[in-house]
Amino acid sequence: MRKKKVVVLVSGGLDSSTCLAWALAAGHECIALSFDYGQRHGAELQAARRVVAAFGISEHRIMHLGLDQIGGSALTDPDLVVPEVPVEGIPVTYVPARNTIFLSLALALAEAKAASEIYIGVNAVDYSGYPDCRPAFIQAFQGVADLGTRAGVQGGGVIIQAPLIAMSKAEIIAQGDRLGVDFSLTVSCYQADEAGRACGRCDACRLRREGFAAAACVDPTRYQSSG
Amino acid sequence: MRKKKVVVLVSGGLDSSTCLAWALAAGHECIALSFDYGQRHGAELQAARRVVAAFGISEHRIMHLGLDQIGGSALTDPDLVVPEVPVEGIPVTYVPARNTIFLSLALALAEAKAASEIYIGVNAVDYSGYPDCRPAFIQAFQGVADLGTRAGVQGGGVIIQAPLIAMSKAEIIAQGDRLGVDFSLTVSCYQADEAGRACGRCDACRLRREGFAAAACVDPTRYQSSG
Repeated sequence: MRKKKVVVLVSGGLDSSTCLAWALAAGHECIALSFDYGQRHGAELQAARRVVAAFGISEHRIMHLGLDQIGGSALTDPDLVVPEVPVEGIPVTYVPARNTIFLSLALALAEAKAASEIYIGVNAVDYSGYPDCRPAFIQAFQGVADLGTRAGVQGGGVIIQAPLIAMSKAEIIAQGDRLGVDFSLTVSCYQADEAGRACGRCDACRLRREGFAAAACVDPTRYQSSG
Repeated sequence: MRKKKVVVLVSGGLDSSTCLAWALAAGHECIALSFDYGQRHGAELQAARRVVAAFGISEHRIMHLGLDQIGGSALTDPDLVVPEVPVEGIPVTYVPARNTIFLSLALALAEAKAASEIYIGVNAVDYSGYPDCRPAFIQAFQGVADLGTRAGVQGGGVIIQAPLIAMSKAEIIAQGDRLGVDFSLTVSCYQADEAGRACGRCDACRLRREGFAAAACVDPTRYQSSG
């Protein structure tokens, strides 16, 4: 059987790394896609490079996107502070329309490369409450992919796969572990330092730490305070 | 009454220029958004600058997007030839997922700037048959805007306005003329030269020329062959 070609969005966090491992385990030929979008945590992009290389994937596209020009998020605007206590509602770390933008560019790449699926590691269980991580959003974007592309109109359009969407963080970690993800390469923290060490206090750190504990998995996260 | 703030996608062609005039005539405060996306017709972007300046709009964002890295279109890949006779189906000038990408970035900007509407000059009558210019596509993207943004979830989300979608090219030209668009500033040609002069042979040139004739409007287009 011929391998299916797919585009996998890889941020360098543990969710997208598990998602990549998932697509590889399914036997797909993977094109990894990451974005240099002016995120304050540049360590994330380094992590994406390491994870993709560790899986031996030859095609890794890194697209530059000036979302810091747009602003409106603590992840792209250094004047906004990343919250270190859980907040009600959608937090200031929400980046306006981020997953819509990422999926749009993945869709263009998938169409240009005749890939049949896009893998995105969004999760709507242990997450920060971002609207663009929910099943209804993915479903709506599928409609755009079906109607807004040549591939969709001519049949054989691009399918959006979000295999982690209904899993808990502990389940994702257990699954990633089974699939051979080296979590020490991944960075989740919203304000990791240049060396990829986590703050231990932001929402992403909290979800990650609790996930490793619940999965009873060794947590390899390096923290800024731990010498 | 307070002015409504809106984002207007301005390519430099006559449709988007008419769309901008339309939003201004409606009394909106307009933020113009254009893309430097590796299009072979760089004259288009110069036209966008001229049109926006002619309307005295102070905020014009020009975002860089490396769609030429993605390829798959005669508009971004110099190795592909722009067809000069009408073709069946979706032509090679179709840029994969272009309007999805443009609307995604407009959505992010609208959300970050608390703008309530996005104007896009797509048209599904006298057009090149691109799937992402049709009403069903705009409707699908509205679903993404509603579900994938903070603004959409919290109420008062961003509305996608496509006022030209059901108009003929002649109707668009007549309307633009009434609204004060200086069509001599606009460039439609897929392979305009650096000075903005049109080839006169591509699909965009054909639609434009026929539109001016049907509207019985003076056609100010400058052609490469006309001294």
